[in-house]
Amino acid sequence: MFELLQTEGKARRGRFTTVHGKVETPAFMNVATSAAIKGGISSYDLVDLHCQVELCNTYHLHLRPGDDVVSDMGGLRAFMGWQGPVLTDSGGFQVFSLAPLRRITEDGVYFSSHIDGSHIFMGPEESMRIQSNLGSTIAMAFDECVANPAEYEYAVQSCARTTRWLERCKKEMACLNAAPGTINPHQMLFGINQGATFDDLRVAHMRQIAEMDLDGYAIGGLAVGEPAEDMYRIISCVEPHMPVGKPRYLMGVGTPLNLLEAVERGIDLFDCVMPSRNARHAHVFTRAGKRNLMNAKYTRDSAPIDETCDCPVCKKHSRAYLHHLFKAEELLAMRLSVMHNLYFYNRLMEDIRAAIEEGRFAAFKRELSRTIDRRI
Amino acid sequence: MFELLQTEGKARRGRFTTVHGKVETPAFMNVATSAAIKGGISSYDLVDLHCQVELCNTYHLHLRPGDDVVSDMGGLRAFMGWQGPVLTDSGGFQVFSLAPLRRITEDGVYFSSHIDGSHIFMGPEESMRIQSNLGSTIAMAFDECVANPAEYEYAVQSCARTTRWLERCKKEMACLNAAPGTINPHQMLFGINQGATFDDLRVAHMRQIAEMDLDGYAIGGLAVGEPAEDMYRIISCVEPHMPVGKPRYLMGVGTPLNLLEAVERGIDLFDCVMPSRNARHAHVFTRAGKRNLMNAKYTRDSAPIDETCDCPVCKKHSRAYLHHLFKAEELLAMRLSVMHNLYFYNRLMEDIRAAIEEGRFAAFKRELSRTIDRRI
Repeated sequence: MFELLQTEGKARRGRFTTVHGKVETPAFMNVATSAAIKGGISSYDLVDLHCQVELCNTYHLHLRPGDDVVSDMGGLRAFMGWQGPVLTDSGGFQVFSLAPLRRITEDGVYFSSHIDGSHIFMGPEESMRIQSNLGSTIAMAFDECVANPAEYEYAVQSCARTTRWLERCKKEMACLNAAPGTINPHQMLFGINQGATFDDLRVAHMRQIAEMDLDGYAIGGLAVGEPAEDMYRIISCVEPHMPVGKPRYLMGVGTPLNLLEAVERGIDLFDCVMPSRNARHAHVFTRAGKRNLMNAKYTRDSAPIDETCDCPVCKKHSRAYLHHLFKAEELLAMRLSVMHNLYFYNRLMEDIRAAIEEGRFAAFKRELSRTIDRRI
Repeated sequence: MFELLQTEGKARRGRFTTVHGKVETPAFMNVATSAAIKGGISSYDLVDLHCQVELCNTYHLHLRPGDDVVSDMGGLRAFMGWQGPVLTDSGGFQVFSLAPLRRITEDGVYFSSHIDGSHIFMGPEESMRIQSNLGSTIAMAFDECVANPAEYEYAVQSCARTTRWLERCKKEMACLNAAPGTINPHQMLFGINQGATFDDLRVAHMRQIAEMDLDGYAIGGLAVGEPAEDMYRIISCVEPHMPVGKPRYLMGVGTPLNLLEAVERGIDLFDCVMPSRNARHAHVFTRAGKRNLMNAKYTRDSAPIDETCDCPVCKKHSRAYLHHLFKAEELLAMRLSVMHNLYFYNRLMEDIRAAIEEGRFAAFKRELSRTIDRRI
């Protein structure tokens, strides 16, 4: 159930209630692709980092360790030791971005594992069965992500197929949730809007899937190389057709500035590998801008990454120490930087929520936008 | 100051008081070579792992980030965020094991950095100055580690030089501790016994250095490929000549069984990369034996690494999850396994101390020796 608590323009302050806990929105979901946050962060650490939702990946977990294994271990939450909600991506994006030798049919997609080359078939029913085995709180529909840029005619066909697949996902999930022994019989389904960068296709597709009364709606197929302005335009285009009473999720986005812009356009949920991936390459976020901890100027800098940050890393460690750890290629460098960046994203969302509650989101965004994306 | 609290045969229960805190002995020092435990473990984590002493390396830290940097940051303890005692190895062992193109003279050793090939000279005075910059609690004397097996005549000459170097170390440290602005003006010096595998040389060298009234005495140059029986024989040979009222440190040792055997022969302090290195390769310790977490039999094993262990990892994570993390090459696999293994070593020492206090160390050792070294 989604409650809209407050709005400021299009920006929404909401509360999404799931069987595994409440999610205060707007929220950033922390990406644990293979049931672990990259950089040596456990689910227990995530509690200290103010994470609300962990996001795991159907494609990766189906290949390794196998969703049958995760199911036998009681589902993802028991397997990872995470008490809160988990969202599983459907595998659609990975089938189209990682797997070689794929062939798309009306049934689904034939592809080769990027790990061992073995032949695998995944369609809407398979994706739903895997996600049911994983026992996630929220399952994503199995969709086709078309490449960017896409041909208009291909995008039309692909959207229609994605809608047909969504109907099959919904039907399959109803069966799985009702089956005896299902790990999470209250699993929810989010549909995914597609349509490449064509506004008319995006709107038409959104209107179609909005009628299906799903638990939430995502905008997929963005942040795949198109200019940020295209992404913002598409959100603004699609948003008026998204049900008001359901959470809205912009998949795979983005920079802190992207988040501010998307919240302003009515988005509630986000996920992105950016905070953890950047951190592993020594790029850390502050509200005054991004730092590269490899920079020699930090050699003797006794300040924390961010003097205004109260994360477990900034309370304890200096830029000089982190700089040394990166130069010495110590794994601790990655762990500490990932912790800082995830906390930065989660805290940013907390402050966005407070700003909307207090009717000062526009000013908050204007102020932060001046500095948050620059290099310092 | 070292107090001998209790003995059982040769085994000693002691308390070593330093300016940075007390060390209950026998103790295992946790190795943070480049000012970080490998595997993504911070000094703050070490508190939870019952670590008493962190050990860092003079050679590595001199090359990177430079002891001048560490000094400017307030010394190793401030740099790493560790409140307890730190022991710094002198660099002697690394100069002889890692650096190419070395040339030994009476002054010291000319060698090339293993990082960038730059030419470096290190002698007793240089090692002491670096360790003073690092601000460690305990500095180790700069010694020569001869290769195993060694020629008798070479070992004689080398021992004599190591003794002369020790005298220079002691003199230099006295100056450094008295100098204004020294980070730790109470830095202590441990001498290192050498003599390869020749009992007469070992004993003669130990008797010589015992007269120098140092803060502690180490046995060096062991665990370099000789059979364990040779190591045990040398400890037994040298031990009667070690001052009773000073801590005794067996450098670079070893397996859990080695620790039990060495404690029985009168050793108080240990260090070894084994718990962290083994953990990073999925080898974890339990008192019932060693496990390889890569083994397929753990795929669906919901038990913790060790059912009898109360470490932060065994309280939270299953063998199945750790097995998956290793297969998926997630850094979290290393972190969790290193945490477990360090806790295992630190807890083993706690139980050794309790056993000596209660006069049941012999039985404790006999019981554990049956299982601790086997593969399960």
